[in-house]
Amino acid sequence: MKLISYGKHRRAAEKGMEEGTGIVKHILLGKFKDGLSEEQIEEYIKGYASLVNLVPSMKAFRWGKDVSIENMHQGFTHVFESTFESTEGIAEYLTHPDHIKFANMLLPQLEKVIVVDYKPTAVQL
Amino acid sequence: MKLISYGKHRRAAEKGMEEGTGIVKHILLGKFKDGLSEEQIEEYIKGYASLVNLVPSMKAFRWGKDVSIENMHQGFTHVFESTFESTEGIAEYLTHPDHIKFANMLLPQLEKVIVVDYKPTAVQL
Repeated sequence: MKLISYGKHRRAAEKGMEEGTGIVKHILLGKFKDGLSEEQIEEYIKGYASLVNLVPSMKAFRWGKDVSIENMHQGFTHVFESTFESTEGIAEYLTHPDHIKFANMLLPQLEKVIVVDYKPTAVQL
Repeated sequence: MKLISYGKHRRAAEKGMEEGTGIVKHILLGKFKDGLSEEQIEEYIKGYASLVNLVPSMKAFRWGKDVSIENMHQGFTHVFESTFESTEGIAEYLTHPDHIKFANMLLPQLEKVIVVDYKPTAVQL
């Protein structure tokens, strides 16, 4: 098994498909429940952003409304993008009391939510 | 309507919630159909990446496998992140023949797909 893994690893590296060993992006796609005001939504976004100052392993936060024109967004209206230096940093974040407190406020306000983490990786062409 | 829009705009700016006027991220979450080999998936990723050289408005491409531990990824396995300088650039991309050709190859290989575009915006705390 070890040899096969190594072989796959090497083939990926040769093709420039190596997965990044650097930062990890934590992306939350959300759709807020009907009935929330713009002001309420802004408060949640500000609360999310404030985690950068509370959780040491969270290095950056960006957000944006969906502006896609393809109609493949399946109703998701907001993207929240947090940056960590490692997957361990995300694990620390998930168990941090300030994150837990905020998540317990935010999640009930969302009709739909998807969370993915990935290591942004370039492809050598 | 114009005054109301302006008012909302100004309030958002005062709160540091202004939406970015810079780059636009185009995020595709995908789950490949069962039965595709790792090599086939690598070829699709390489084909996606090669659009950077074919479509002038596409400025960068990164990808990564889902590495989340929360189990809120709803089965999505891959994230593809393209960067554009404007929403107009994304419109150009969507109608570019090389993108259309590639999309027609990729999309039938995906069991699930979500595409969102957003302008990554910081929050002034």
